[in-house]
Parts: sequence; C-alpha cells; structure tokens
Amino acid sequence: MSTALIPGSFDPITLGHINIIERALDIFDRLVVVMAVNPQKTPLFTVEENLAMIREATAQWPQVEADHTDGLLVDYARQRGIRTAVRGLRAVTDFEAELSMALTNRRLWPEFESLYMMTAPEYLFLRSSTVREVAAMGGDVAGMVPPGVERRLAERFGGA
Amino acid sequence: MSTALIPGSFDPITLGHINIIERALDIFDRLVVVMAVNPQKTPLFTVEENLAMIREATAQWPQVEADHTDGLLVDYARQRGIRTAVRGLRAVTDFEAELSMALTNRRLWPEFESLYMMTAPEYLFLRSSTVREVAAMGGDVAGMVPPGVERRLAERFGGA
Amino acid sequence: MSTALIPGSFDPITLGHINIIERALDIFDRLVVVMAVNPQKTPLFTVEENLAMIREATAQWPQVEADHTDGLLVDYARQRGIRTAVRGLRAVTDFEAELSMALTNRRLWPEFESLYMMTAPEYLFLRSSTVREVAAMGGDVAGMVPPGVERRLAERFGGA
Amino acid sequence: MSTALIPGSFDPITLGHINIIERALDIFDRLVVVMAVNPQKTPLFTVEENLAMIREATAQWPQVEADHTDGLLVDYARQRGIRTAVRGLRAVTDFEAELSMALTNRRLWPEFESLYMMTAPEYLFLRSSTVREVAAMGGDVAGMVPPGVERRLAERFGGA
Amino acid sequence: MSTALIPGSFDPITLGHINIIERALDIFDRLVVVMAVNPQKTPLFTVEENLAMIREATAQWPQVEADHTDGLLVDYARQRGIRTAVRGLRAVTDFEAELSMALTNRRLWPEFESLYMMTAPEYLFLRSSTVREVAAMGGDVAGMVPPGVERRLAERFGGA
Amino acid sequence: MSTALIPGSFDPITLGHINIIERALDIFDRLVVVMAVNPQKTPLFTVEENLAMIREATAQWPQVEADHTDGLLVDYARQRGIRTAVRGLRAVTDFEAELSMALTNRRLWPEFESLYMMTAPEYLFLRSSTVREVAAMGGDVAGMVPPGVERRLAERFGGA
Repeated sequence: MSTALIPGSFDPITLGHINIIERALDIFDRLVVVMAVNPQKTPLFTVEENLAMIREATAQWPQVEADHTDGLLVDYARQRGIRTAVRGLRAVTDFEAELSMALTNRRLWPEFESLYMMTAPEYLFLRSSTVREVAAMGGDVAGMVPPGVERRLAERFGGA
Repeated sequence: MSTALIPGSFDPITLGHINIIERALDIFDRLVVVMAVNPQKTPLFTVEENLAMIREATAQWPQVEADHTDGLLVDYARQRGIRTAVRGLRAVTDFEAELSMALTNRRLWPEFESLYMMTAPEYLFLRSSTVREVAAMGGDVAGMVPPGVERRLAERFGGA
Repeated sequence: MSTALIPGSFDPITLGHINIIERALDIFDRLVVVMAVNPQKTPLFTVEENLAMIREATAQWPQVEADHTDGLLVDYARQRGIRTAVRGLRAVTDFEAELSMALTNRRLWPEFESLYMMTAPEYLFLRSSTVREVAAMGGDVAGMVPPGVERRLAERFGGA
Repeated sequence: MSTALIPGSFDPITLGHINIIERALDIFDRLVVVMAVNPQKTPLFTVEENLAMIREATAQWPQVEADHTDGLLVDYARQRGIRTAVRGLRAVTDFEAELSMALTNRRLWPEFESLYMMTAPEYLFLRSSTVREVAAMGGDVAGMVPPGVERRLAERFGGA
Repeated sequence: MSTALIPGSFDPITLGHINIIERALDIFDRLVVVMAVNPQKTPLFTVEENLAMIREATAQWPQVEADHTDGLLVDYARQRGIRTAVRGLRAVTDFEAELSMALTNRRLWPEFESLYMMTAPEYLFLRSSTVREVAAMGGDVAGMVPPGVERRLAERFGGA
Repeated sequence: MSTALIPGSFDPITLGHINIIERALDIFDRLVVVMAVNPQKTPLFTVEENLAMIREATAQWPQVEADHTDGLLVDYARQRGIRTAVRGLRAVTDFEAELSMALTNRRLWPEFESLYMMTAPEYLFLRSSTVREVAAMGGDVAGMVPPGVERRLAERFGGA
C-alpha cells in the first residue's frame, strides 16, 4: 500500500491544497497531511484549529489523515516510514524554494523523495497568506477556501 | 474622462514612482495615487508624512490626487468608481507577486483591471526599501528620490 | 479618442488574445490589432489567412481593426500616430522578452508606451505555437481558439 | 500495479534521465520510457539508435520498457491506459515550459497527471543538447551519459 | 597586489562560502571577508562569534582577513581602498537581489565592481538560514558547515 | 600578470560588450576577446568581419586582443593557459544559461573559473540579435553599437 505525505503550513488550508490532495489520491492509496509548525512564526489559527479545518475539509476521504510536527519533516517522515511527499508548484519563486528544500531533505535523508504537481490554473493565485490578508480586510474568500474555513475566518474577523 | 489608480506603499515615494506617474499621465486624464496602509508593518514615515511627500512631488500635475486606504484596494477602487490601476514592473519576483495580486483583485472585483509598465532602466534598481536602508546608513539618496523626500530623510537620519 | 495597438504574430489568433482585446476595450476607444510579419520565419497560415481569422473573431467589435506590418512596430505606430500598445503577460520568460522589447521600442521612439495585462488563469498555458503543435498531431483545440480558427486548423490538418 | 510514463526526447539519454528513472522506480512498479518524436526537428541519432541506447542503459531494470510516439503524449498515454508521467525539473525556464505542457496535457485529458522531481545537483547542468555540443567539439562526455551512449557519440564524432 | 572583498552576513559561515573564498584565491592575492551587520535583524551568533568562526575556517589561508561593518559596504570598501567584491550566485531570486544591490552600489560608488561566481552544484541548496533551521530542529549539518561551526551549533542547540 | 577571456559570439559586438570589457580592464592586466564560432548557425557577419569590428572598437586598449575558436571554449582557454573568463549578466534567462555553461565548463576543466558582472542598466535591453533585427528593418542602432559596427550594418542593410 503506497502512502505519501502532503506537507505544508496550512494556516489555513485552501482549495488549492484540497485540489492537490484530490489529485494525489489518484496516485497514492493513503495520504498524511502533515502541518509543519514553525515556532518562529505566530500563526493566525492554532495548531488544533488548523488540524480541525483540515479534517473537516477532507472528511469525505477516509484514506486521508491529518497530523502535525514541530520537528524536521524528514524526521517525521522517517518515524512514520513514509518516503514520499507531494507538493503543489505555483510559481518560479515557489520552484526555487522547493528545489532548495527538496535537496536539503534528500541530504538529510537520501531515500526521501519530493514529488511536485503543477497547481491548477484557477488556484495559481492562491496562498494562505493572501487568504489571511483578504479576510482581515473584510474581503470575500468564497471560492478560495473550504466552507468550514470560510466560516472560521468570518468568526475571527467579524465578516458577514 | 479616464481615471486610473497608482497604488503602492510609497514609504517613501521614489523617482521610479514619479516616472510611472508621468508616463501614465500620457494615457489617463486623471490619476489617484493611493497609498495602501498595511497595519501589520511599521512604516518609516507616517501616513501624513508620506502623503505630504507625494503631494509635493506631484504638485506640478493638478490632475494627480493623493489618497490612502486601510482596506482592500478593490474596495477603495469600487467606492471611487475607478476600474483601472497602473503599476511599474521591475523584476521577475515583482512579476510573480503582481500576477498573484492582479488575479486576486480580479477575483474580488472582475471589472478591475491592472495595467503594467516596464520600469525605466535607470530606476530598475530602485525600491523604497533600498532607499530606506541606504539613507539609514548615511548613504547618498540623491537621484533616487524627489528633493522633498531627500530632505525629510536627511532630517530623519541626521544626514548632510 | 484613445487608440491602442495590440501587436503580436497571431499565427493563429487564440482565445488568450481575444481575452486581452476584450479587456483592452474597457480602457481604449479603438484598437488596432497589428500582426508583425517576421520574414525569417515560415508561418503556418499566410498573412491574409491570419488577418481573416482575426477579423472574423473580432467582428462583434466595430472599434477593432486588423492590420499587419513587415517593418518595426514603432515605425508602424509612428505612421499611424498611435503611442500605446497593449500586450498580455503569461510567464517569467515572457516578462523578460517583453521588458527587452519595451525598452528597445522606447529607445527607438521615446514616446511609445507598452502596457501589459496579466493573462487570465484559464489562458496562462496558451501559446499559438502550442495550438499549432496540438492541431498538427490531431489534438482537440476547442476552448483554445475561436471557432473560425478551429475550422481552418481542421481543414489544414485533416482533423475531425 | 502502478505504472508511470517517463516522457522526453532522449537524443541521447543522459545520466540525468537515468537518475530520474532510478528514483521513479522507488514509487512506481513499472515505467515506460517514451520518446516523443518531433517531426520538425532533425535529431542527432535515429529513433532506433536512441531506443537501443535507452534499452541498454536500463537493462538492469526489467520493469522498465522503452517505446516512442509520433503523436501527442496524452494520446499515447490514453491508449496504454497510463495516467501518470514523471519528469525532472532543473531550472526556472524548465519550470515554465513544464507548467505550460502539464496544463495543456490536462486540458487534453483531464485525468492525466504530471509529477515532477527535482534534478539531483550533479545533473543540474546536464541537457541532451549540451551533450551533443560538447561531443561534436571533441569534449569529454564521461560522467554525463551512460557508457553505451559515450561509445556511440565517439563513433559518430570520431572522438577517442 | 590585487585585493577583493567577500561580503555577506555569515550567520554562520557555510561550506558554500568557503568554496567561493577558495576559488576567489585563484584570482586575487588577498581577500577581506567582511560581515555586513544589519542592526534590524537579530542574528543567531554575535558578531564576535561569527568572526571567530570565519577566522577558524580560513586559518589555512594567511592572505584571508576577516572584518565587519555596521555601515554601507561601499563606504567600508572606499575606506579600505578595495574596489572589487566577489559573491556566489545560486538562484534566480539571488540573481535579482544581487543585480539590484550591484547597481545600487555602483550608483553610490561608480568605481566599485561586483563579480559573481556560480555556486558549485553541491552547495546550491545551502543558505545560512537553512543551516540555522536544520540545526535548531536537531538535524545534522555535517557537510554543510566547517567543523568549528558544526561544534558551535551543537553547543547552542544541545545537539549531539 | 593577470589575463582573462571575454568569450561570446559577437555578431556583432555591441556597446554592452564594450562596457564589460572596459570594466574588466580595471581588474585584469590583459584581456582576450574570444569569438566562439558555432558551425550550426549562419552569422550575419563573417568571422573576419566580426573580428575586425572588435579590433576597431577596442583599438584604444593595447592590452586587449581579439581571437576566435571553432572548438570548446575550455580547450581554447587551456591552450592559452588562461583560467578565467568574464561575462555580463542581464536577465534571469541569461543567468540560467550561464549557470549551465559555467558548470559544464568546470566539469570539462575544473580549474576554469567564470566571473560575471551585472550589465549596466542602459545596456540591459541590448542583445546582438536585437541589433540585427532592428538594423534589418531599417531602425536606428546608434547608441547600441560602436560607430564602426553602425557603419557596417548600414552598408549591409542599405540604411542611412
């Protein structure tokens, strides 16, 4: 049975992430969506809130699990015995950061492989940071995030 | 009568911005230079100081107005009934950030159009952040900013 | 009355070009779609065929004219007294070629201004060369080109 | 049993391609290396020669098959019932061409998925075109191509 | 006698920096490794610690000196009478930041020249920030930094 | 005495090349401008014509020599005992092609070093291919090439 990680910071999960998860399910039997928690940064939502939103948004797929790690992704992967990660690529600046991360991860664990999918055109503009900014200024994030995330953003920012 | 926005953070306005304004005046009858105020960031100058410098630097063009907004650019644009923005492009990293912003803005208001001009070669190196850094370390910013900005930077950093 | 050029090689015109034309019509009163003919290259369609397809695809807009030039774009622009061009930007490699062309054109005629629009996400993948390749190998180009172009490609390559 | 395509022009196959094949074998049970033949271009080696070199270089892996197509990759994939392709990414210009190709292929066959791996650092500089140029000028291609390819290049160009 | 600067933030020095220093020694008689101290940022190590690590890592080359500056690089360069700097280039985003910095520096001191070397493939993934992150999460930084830096990172983060 | 190569195709030499040569003379005692002749391509001018234009344009610097090679640059460099080359960088697409070429050259001759300078802003738009196209269509190339090249282009294309 093939399993892959879907790593990210997911603060919060967007429809772009959901699109990658859905496409990765055509290739892998099981997926572990793993939230990398960066202690340097103050996220908009807590780890528990973000995990709850991931679980709600992926509830239709029993073969998708959500988890988080405070450590290196490769250490998490090694402990779980998962040697493959899948990520979406959007842009040139993405590409270079991902190249650097993939090469660093292979240096730390040579058996670890990162696979990339090209982001669907309708989500090319979509980053979690954009979602946070638009929501904070009262903009409409429908069509950018799953309904559960939209609701929580509205609660947080007092939107409609 | 055609009107366009010139959006930016303008902290402070540079000769690169002035060059874009001047060229946009060949195409549009009126321009509104609109400073987007990001509450997350601590600017070098206050909103009022930056607006004063924009007004001083564009005083020769009565058809240029300066304003600011704390909200989304598209909300400001919609309230004013202005459907076009003009921005300068300098570099690949600019290009991708602008592509993302333009697509997000059109998603928020489909009638909103962002037009880009290629930055003149002599201003390709010029960012407000570079101006702030050079001035803070006592470097000469002549030829980078309008005279009024140069004076205020000297006052702020005790330069010559 | 404001007029802009829409320059390109249009071999053949695609829905991505039509999208730029449609959006430029919100800003300019008249547009001249001008086909730059490169004598070094052997096009798929003749100048007359490509012009006919442009005219058919823009027939609903009486304010759009189609023309061609064998010379420098700026010479054509100067003769017509049109100082503005509008182009779509898709990618980083586009951006650099366009930056170079815009700076060269301004050097040849300093009053000439090139404006850029970000290509709509659904057309980001679309180049005339891709259309030619897909059609030549019998692929379906519906949704990539206007109906008249699709028909002519089918005639040319014996498609369905 | 999972199967993926390894598409390319392979004129000739390099150690960079071999590295991608080897890594893809950790994820997929079977691989079909499929040479896309572009009738517009004159290759250095014939289809048969390039296929023979691919087969020789992958002889240690019975689960790797080599084939070619004159048509669209997605048509070949559909006929074989293979919905996944794996490619190596080296550079920003690669990235944009691949983004365009992946989006075009998904438009032609929405179930088709392209997965990308980051090229290993030691092969980042390696393109088939570089190999051809270096060999044609009498340079040493050891460490760039499999031994069988090195031998055939020497025969072709009268190298040592 | 030819002398060049090797400017950077070196927090801490990596094997990628050492590689550039070693290659620059083939071209220049003397090198001054100059640490630019950015008062806005909180470094991982103090100026003294980073200077000590640079000196330890370059002890085999008596013609290499280490120093630091709180001001503009060009002011430091001018005071020392050194008109040339050597830097490594890794990526497109590096390239654009370096282009901007080189053009700004030449504007501040027209006689100042920045020379770039392409980073060796094995260090393309290596940034000081990656080293800090990996070390902070308990990852192995052997092969990324000189032994003295590895030891100090272990002391700092309680690693093995 | 330090010597560096200035390699290129120089068909024809432009003011951008002259700018790099002039700046390289501040760092090296002698320069060899070496024209790489690609037998695959049909140049605009013959080897002899291009060499004559290089020599005329660099006549004021006795320490600059012009030469050509039909082989690999590193083979030429090794025969001459010159281990350093200097090139100008203009753009991201330049950067990647140069990265690939520099890594290939170091693989062929590990002691060979390529140094890069950032192109001056006024020449960022300038390529020999642009000069050829503009001249072929009767455009004015003054300010793009040395006077001798301008004269020969006029002779060739019957310009003013």
